[in-house]
Amino acid sequence: MSRPLAIGVIGYGYWGPNLVRNFAETPGAAVTWCSDMREERRALVARRYPGIRATGDVDEMLRDPELDAVAIATPVHTHFALAKKALLAGKHVLVEKPMTASVAESEELVALAERQGRVLMVDHTFVYTGAVEKMKELVTSGELGDLYYFDSVRVNLGLFQHDIDVLWDLAPHDLSILTDLVPQTPRFVSAHAVDHTGSGLADMAYMTVHYDDAFLAHFHVNWLSPVKVRRILVGGSRRMVLFDDMEPSEKICIYDRGVTVTSKEGLYKTLIDYRTGDMWAPRIEFREALSRECEHFVECARLGKPPRTGGEAGLRVVRLLDAATRSMAAEGRREPV
Amino acid sequence: MSRPLAIGVIGYGYWGPNLVRNFAETPGAAVTWCSDMREERRALVARRYPGIRATGDVDEMLRDPELDAVAIATPVHTHFALAKKALLAGKHVLVEKPMTASVAESEELVALAERQGRVLMVDHTFVYTGAVEKMKELVTSGELGDLYYFDSVRVNLGLFQHDIDVLWDLAPHDLSILTDLVPQTPRFVSAHAVDHTGSGLADMAYMTVHYDDAFLAHFHVNWLSPVKVRRILVGGSRRMVLFDDMEPSEKICIYDRGVTVTSKEGLYKTLIDYRTGDMWAPRIEFREALSRECEHFVECARLGKPPRTGGEAGLRVVRLLDAATRSMAAEGRREPV
Amino acid sequence: MSRPLAIGVIGYGYWGPNLVRNFAETPGAAVTWCSDMREERRALVARRYPGIRATGDVDEMLRDPELDAVAIATPVHTHFALAKKALLAGKHVLVEKPMTASVAESEELVALAERQGRVLMVDHTFVYTGAVEKMKELVTSGELGDLYYFDSVRVNLGLFQHDIDVLWDLAPHDLSILTDLVPQTPRFVSAHAVDHTGSGLADMAYMTVHYDDAFLAHFHVNWLSPVKVRRILVGGSRRMVLFDDMEPSEKICIYDRGVTVTSKEGLYKTLIDYRTGDMWAPRIEFREALSRECEHFVECARLGKPPRTGGEAGLRVVRLLDAATRSMAAEGRREPV
Amino acid sequence: MSRPLAIGVIGYGYWGPNLVRNFAETPGAAVTWCSDMREERRALVARRYPGIRATGDVDEMLRDPELDAVAIATPVHTHFALAKKALLAGKHVLVEKPMTASVAESEELVALAERQGRVLMVDHTFVYTGAVEKMKELVTSGELGDLYYFDSVRVNLGLFQHDIDVLWDLAPHDLSILTDLVPQTPRFVSAHAVDHTGSGLADMAYMTVHYDDAFLAHFHVNWLSPVKVRRILVGGSRRMVLFDDMEPSEKICIYDRGVTVTSKEGLYKTLIDYRTGDMWAPRIEFREALSRECEHFVECARLGKPPRTGGEAGLRVVRLLDAATRSMAAEGRREPV
Repeated sequence: MSRPLAIGVIGYGYWGPNLVRNFAETPGAAVTWCSDMREERRALVARRYPGIRATGDVDEMLRDPELDAVAIATPVHTHFALAKKALLAGKHVLVEKPMTASVAESEELVALAERQGRVLMVDHTFVYTGAVEKMKELVTSGELGDLYYFDSVRVNLGLFQHDIDVLWDLAPHDLSILTDLVPQTPRFVSAHAVDHTGSGLADMAYMTVHYDDAFLAHFHVNWLSPVKVRRILVGGSRRMVLFDDMEPSEKICIYDRGVTVTSKEGLYKTLIDYRTGDMWAPRIEFREALSRECEHFVECARLGKPPRTGGEAGLRVVRLLDAATRSMAAEGRREPV
Repeated sequence: MSRPLAIGVIGYGYWGPNLVRNFAETPGAAVTWCSDMREERRALVARRYPGIRATGDVDEMLRDPELDAVAIATPVHTHFALAKKALLAGKHVLVEKPMTASVAESEELVALAERQGRVLMVDHTFVYTGAVEKMKELVTSGELGDLYYFDSVRVNLGLFQHDIDVLWDLAPHDLSILTDLVPQTPRFVSAHAVDHTGSGLADMAYMTVHYDDAFLAHFHVNWLSPVKVRRILVGGSRRMVLFDDMEPSEKICIYDRGVTVTSKEGLYKTLIDYRTGDMWAPRIEFREALSRECEHFVECARLGKPPRTGGEAGLRVVRLLDAATRSMAAEGRREPV
Repeated sequence: MSRPLAIGVIGYGYWGPNLVRNFAETPGAAVTWCSDMREERRALVARRYPGIRATGDVDEMLRDPELDAVAIATPVHTHFALAKKALLAGKHVLVEKPMTASVAESEELVALAERQGRVLMVDHTFVYTGAVEKMKELVTSGELGDLYYFDSVRVNLGLFQHDIDVLWDLAPHDLSILTDLVPQTPRFVSAHAVDHTGSGLADMAYMTVHYDDAFLAHFHVNWLSPVKVRRILVGGSRRMVLFDDMEPSEKICIYDRGVTVTSKEGLYKTLIDYRTGDMWAPRIEFREALSRECEHFVECARLGKPPRTGGEAGLRVVRLLDAATRSMAAEGRREPV
Repeated sequence: MSRPLAIGVIGYGYWGPNLVRNFAETPGAAVTWCSDMREERRALVARRYPGIRATGDVDEMLRDPELDAVAIATPVHTHFALAKKALLAGKHVLVEKPMTASVAESEELVALAERQGRVLMVDHTFVYTGAVEKMKELVTSGELGDLYYFDSVRVNLGLFQHDIDVLWDLAPHDLSILTDLVPQTPRFVSAHAVDHTGSGLADMAYMTVHYDDAFLAHFHVNWLSPVKVRRILVGGSRRMVLFDDMEPSEKICIYDRGVTVTSKEGLYKTLIDYRTGDMWAPRIEFREALSRECEHFVECARLGKPPRTGGEAGLRVVRLLDAATRSMAAEGRREPV
């Protein structure tokens, strides 16, 4: 294929402009369409990018036989219908996280993409950051030893989403990192949440993910924190790693610290030694993650390669969110994933 | 009473030396006895404080009719028996946190102190820090508005306690602050914990405390964190406060930030406004908390005043730990407090 | 004037794109021309802004009678000739800092702008940040009391400028803040610098500015620091303020701390009391400074108002740089400003 | 020698208690005397250490033939007379920094100690910290490459010294680190200082030390800073190191960052590349520096070894302070060391 991959962006609100800008600069790609239901947003597209056709009618865009792929950046409850329509029209699809609003919808999209032979990819942007790639390298190389825990805090004074609660809004970032890093299968989820404003949507939540072994993952998401925290701590038997996304330069710190079970004497005694050692902060590639992700999507679409964050990855995150939502409704009871 | 209050310190291990040093410098008090079962610890007491009688036999100490009070700094499972013996001998008692290893024991001590007319106080040191006193002032004056949440993180690479798990080791600090600050009665506790070393004791735990209203408290305690974090965030409808105990100077930051439910239009719409405003860090009194606490104990013992952290406060903390322990054993099920 | 102010941007390298983007979004302005000697930069302009005429010939641009103003973002040694030409052609001029490479050039531009009745403004961007505006407010309201010192550190591992040394590259930021905040007239400058790479350009420098009274200003600029620091501390007799530009949220912290000369007993004794008090961090307006500056330039050009950072302000900064350069050449001797 | 080294501590004010406590716990040493002119300080010694003879008369102490050594912790202007007297009485001497109030005095002490065959050591405590030992290792192993600069900031809202200015009070810490780390001989000093309170003593100062090559050292000391900063940055051609003493755990950070002069093309072009790489924070020994220093003094006194911070090291620091004082009086003129 010698002409560029023609991409249409659906939704030009908060995230859409980033997709347009990045795809516009991705080699081998061209943004040919952009749709938004709001007239003023279409006018903005037209002013900034005279070469892009702006429309209020997605179907018009999808009827273009020259269009190869779409990127969907609309509210969550619309993801499923739009992605389905696009896949049925034979387009490759990149969709915002969370992939859909329910497990059933995600499963249907995965199956449909398979049948249509099209790429279905979910925009788990963090997976494409230099920081998470470094963490992945540390986990898969065994550098961290056995994984002990994954502890994430993502809190700030944020804008309320009007169609989803804080868990569906913020946790997908961290859940996408978790599922990318950790190969084990999550078994159960417990979650607690509260709605302080009477909006009907939880504004803070705690979520715990249980596995077959002693590994444990925990998430704190909060729209009501006066301070902004973005930290993930991954503990292992050999080393531990801290990803602090608010840190301007040293985002990843690796600690040569841990605990060693040195011996067991008889039945009742375990000797435990603490090991404190050096810390190091490897240089991290600072290129914009979305730019690398757009390149990856274009490459997968052109070569028919399975993407790193394909429909299955999106489904895994939605399954965890779904189990958490059930647990929240059942007073924090463990719910199967 | 013109002679100083005569105090005996039981246990000269990690914390005992701090009690001896502080009581030795408290006006109106004198340390006359110190007991420890280990000969080398008694030798150390003798070398440092030639005027203090060191003994390996607590009963010998308690038989001294001149002894007015004891301070107990021994392993948790011994607190009950020692405190009971001391109260029965007519001594005032200051006991390390957690007060006892069970709710029944704590209840018995509270009742016994009442019957004996002696002061029973628990060493909730943090309650006597300038930082917590400032928080208390903010809560009780209504400065924070309605309380929304209490979120605490206390993690580090710590020394394993041999008789208690990480929850009973670390959480009493934060639970004592919670119960001091928040007047509402906790209803349920959910908790999750893991033991990664096979020691039989959990080394990390998450604990959630539920109330009748939307207020929520959450605790993360961890012996396996390579970084040391000591943070409590209290969110209110008007203001929020962060207590960061690792911060050398500005330990308390108050944020004039929050969320305002500005109006409800019809049934389905809530307009929510975020308010971002100034932050300020009030000057905090830096005097050693234990020194103020020792003064308070002496004053209560001499004047028969109820202490700020009396037996009831100790019992409240033990009730929460007990419910958490039950929840941990029941896969995180909500347990009544 | 009802048509927008027509602006030409000269130089589309590192800073030019920011000028184009901001003026393009400034109400009442329109970017009609952009010049750059490099063909690929002109191509980039053409692709991004089809409506802007890109040229390699500044004279062509200046001959356009419809052009009202130019913004100059070229290397420092070209500022004077370009600004002079533009003023002579009757255009208003916004020029990058430092305004020119010498005092004589700056003086000539100031005089020429006066004669031509055109606005000459220098791009001291920091002066338009919410942080510096807050500092200005604190200084002029007397909140800080008598000014004691201005201490600035601006260090990082930076890209070498090819036509100017580290002092002329980095110090203009801080000198523009100093001259905006402090009304007193600087009298002498001492400076020390070193060139470690043999490039002929100093890569680190220290500069001290002396006044008639005890107020002192000091600057540390460095291209060879592995860590990035951007801090200005202004000490006053009543309060002190820290501007930490690396801090994501609390950029300005005001300390109610200082020293009080409480009394003088006889000839030899001065009793000095330290006062430690609260700290507060006022909410700072986060709007992009360059956007406010562009609006201000357009307003001044349209209404003939003198700009906040006009030619005189540019001249004051160049005078200080010039004195520092002389001092550096004279082993750090005090040089008059 | 089988009996412990008998030590007398002169001055039981701010620092004396630390010397007494540390020598009391140093193997092979015993504190037998402590002198202070104030009765209440002697009473405090007597209460804390019944075994130590407290006196108001230094001569009485020095007449004791059993006394082997003294540690002097009195105001600076008294160091010379006391140290001289002690050396003449045949005692080894450890003296607080700065060693004396003038170069001549320091020279005389060095010569006298030599003649008397006694150890003269100056209490440059920082040299004995794990952090500075790590820095020394990095410098001497060539890990940092050629040394480029030494930049130190030591500022806080401090207590005024009544007999010395801020330079003589704070800079000795950093100058002792500089002279320990850097083998080159300093040639000139320039310094600027101001007295804002009319006390006759400068309360903030900047000091620059010049060498034969491009290496430069700079010091900022300040009693009027609302924030406490304790940072030393050492830049080298290969690596750079930051010592941040306010950092609770990672006090030493080593940056694999720098600048490489890659080639020179003809006469006018130097290609300079920046290298950004990993950072690492080695584990630092946290043992109290003064305790290691006391051991070292005892060892030197018993074995007749030259101490790491002997009279010559003390003299080097005093020479720098003296040159700075001359420069401050001469409007910042370069003064020879």
